[in-house]
Amino acid sequence: MRATLMYGAGDVRVENVPDSVIEHPSDALVRITASCICGSDLHPYASMKSADGPVRMGHEFIGTVEDTGPEVTTVKRGDLVVAPFAISDNTCAFCRARLHTSCVHPQAHLWDDEAGEGGQAEAVRVPLADGTLVKLPVTADSALVPSLLTLSDVFCAGHHAAVAGGVDEGARVTVIGDGAVGLLAVLSAERLGAEQIILMGRHRARTDLGRDFGATDVLAARGAEGIEAVRELTGGHGTHVVLEAVGHLAAYEQALGAVRPGGVISRVGVPQYEDAPVGFGSLFRHNIRLAGGVAPARAYIEELMPDILSGTIEPGKVFDTRTGLDGIPAGYQDMADRTALKVLVKP
Amino acid sequence: MRATLMYGAGDVRVENVPDSVIEHPSDALVRITASCICGSDLHPYASMKSADGPVRMGHEFIGTVEDTGPEVTTVKRGDLVVAPFAISDNTCAFCRARLHTSCVHPQAHLWDDEAGEGGQAEAVRVPLADGTLVKLPVTADSALVPSLLTLSDVFCAGHHAAVAGGVDEGARVTVIGDGAVGLLAVLSAERLGAEQIILMGRHRARTDLGRDFGATDVLAARGAEGIEAVRELTGGHGTHVVLEAVGHLAAYEQALGAVRPGGVISRVGVPQYEDAPVGFGSLFRHNIRLAGGVAPARAYIEELMPDILSGTIEPGKVFDTRTGLDGIPAGYQDMADRTALKVLVKP
Repeated sequence: MRATLMYGAGDVRVENVPDSVIEHPSDALVRITASCICGSDLHPYASMKSADGPVRMGHEFIGTVEDTGPEVTTVKRGDLVVAPFAISDNTCAFCRARLHTSCVHPQAHLWDDEAGEGGQAEAVRVPLADGTLVKLPVTADSALVPSLLTLSDVFCAGHHAAVAGGVDEGARVTVIGDGAVGLLAVLSAERLGAEQIILMGRHRARTDLGRDFGATDVLAARGAEGIEAVRELTGGHGTHVVLEAVGHLAAYEQALGAVRPGGVISRVGVPQYEDAPVGFGSLFRHNIRLAGGVAPARAYIEELMPDILSGTIEPGKVFDTRTGLDGIPAGYQDMADRTALKVLVKP
Repeated sequence: MRATLMYGAGDVRVENVPDSVIEHPSDALVRITASCICGSDLHPYASMKSADGPVRMGHEFIGTVEDTGPEVTTVKRGDLVVAPFAISDNTCAFCRARLHTSCVHPQAHLWDDEAGEGGQAEAVRVPLADGTLVKLPVTADSALVPSLLTLSDVFCAGHHAAVAGGVDEGARVTVIGDGAVGLLAVLSAERLGAEQIILMGRHRARTDLGRDFGATDVLAARGAEGIEAVRELTGGHGTHVVLEAVGHLAAYEQALGAVRPGGVISRVGVPQYEDAPVGFGSLFRHNIRLAGGVAPARAYIEELMPDILSGTIEPGKVFDTRTGLDGIPAGYQDMADRTALKVLVKP
């Protein structure tokens, strides 16, 4: 079958690989009907060493169940399913606490850590299928597929940012980053009742979509100038909640400047740094909290799906580019060049 | 009048200074009847440069109102009052949000930033007396004074750690540090219903008091060994809540090792570092939250006082040493040497 491999920074190839097959009794084999490229894939695309490759890519997909191991009971051949970007058993103490990304099952992983499988491919073996997969009540050619595909990662990540940040009715929120997760953090904050949503981003087409999703203010400025602009919009104090959807240290520092005393910085952009300011002058003096992390998408899929099925929200608008498997390498480059926001792949 | 000045690391002197007097219409003049030395005073005692001194010391006191400015309405001459370690107006938006340490009034400061005044003295001018001072329903010679004095800082700091960490009925908690704040974090966690309280500390007399305050387990080990011991006590995963009451980077790193996925590190030890690990491997991968900060003691005084007045709790047990003003320099050294836990000063 055909699948996507990253050989190193800037080097993505679609190649023939051995067919995925059932290996464990709890596996399902899924024929992929829609997948995509993630903003987080751009981090290795920018920096991966050749010695660490090649690795299979892709952690967001919808597909049709083609086969199941003997232990699988919740999905069956022919079901259309969506997979979150982490494999989990959905039964352990952490899953029951809605933190599926910390599932303790030995086969539980992020897809990115699952050697030899990936969603940017024709098919995929899904470990712990009962815990991981969620059946979709539509057909593979439904117009809702792009929005449902965002449940695998980016919409749930944006929602997680808002939930971890405590966004509720009347909240004032700053969102840093106009990538797919940032834009869906805007949509999520709006969905949860935020009163003011300041989107910080520099790409007009994206920030226009952000306004469509509910941003009340858009700021192209960043750094000290951006912080000053947030303060001007908020009576001088910043917002209670800052959703940081980039992952670079500069975005974290911008969050420190935009957050109000007693407020919270909720991060869902994968940090590309390890150490950062958290001392007296940054977090401690004014009781700024730091929240967020790897989004437990599995915990949110059933909760968020009805608003997609009803047409109330359309998170799939983040897909501005579509391609087949062979178009994936160009899709990476387009996303890296910011000429594409998010690339949908129809294998 | 006599007052305490720090001239530099290891150099504390009690000297004659000009009498404190009313300067602003919202001031009160308070004759101090009980004050103390804080663990946070030990940080400058360890490292203050002589060029930055001398500075007045002391931010915890009880005293009798001797005079008030014309705008003061909530306290009057003869009242016994306690002051939190931060001056605030108790009316601004941040005070109303119970974050008095971020009060926006121009005269609002931490006492440590209030030039020319301090609580380790015979008397003190209290700015914003209506917002800052809380009247006590006892006399200056009450046996409850030591416990009531902890409302100025250390008990409220321990309580703040527990509240910011979300401690509630059934919580499992690790407390790092057996200083006064750590021990009162134990008492606070117990008071809020925690089921398991693991106290990490190496001083037997202090950890014995910790057991008295509610610690269910005491661990003298620290570093990797201490983390391993916490995990052994918690089924391998650590505790949901870690209250960090030290402020050194090693304590933060210990907290990272002791906290459970999805849990929270609540800091009230003043950080002696600025940068610390907060990236993928430390906080982000498992959604560890970072909370806490400078405790808004003023927000908690009325809430915590009844349990002291009723004798339900006795946080004043953290005072193991008493002295007069002239004994303050030796008190600093005794606390730095860990031969005294916390020194009560009767001017």
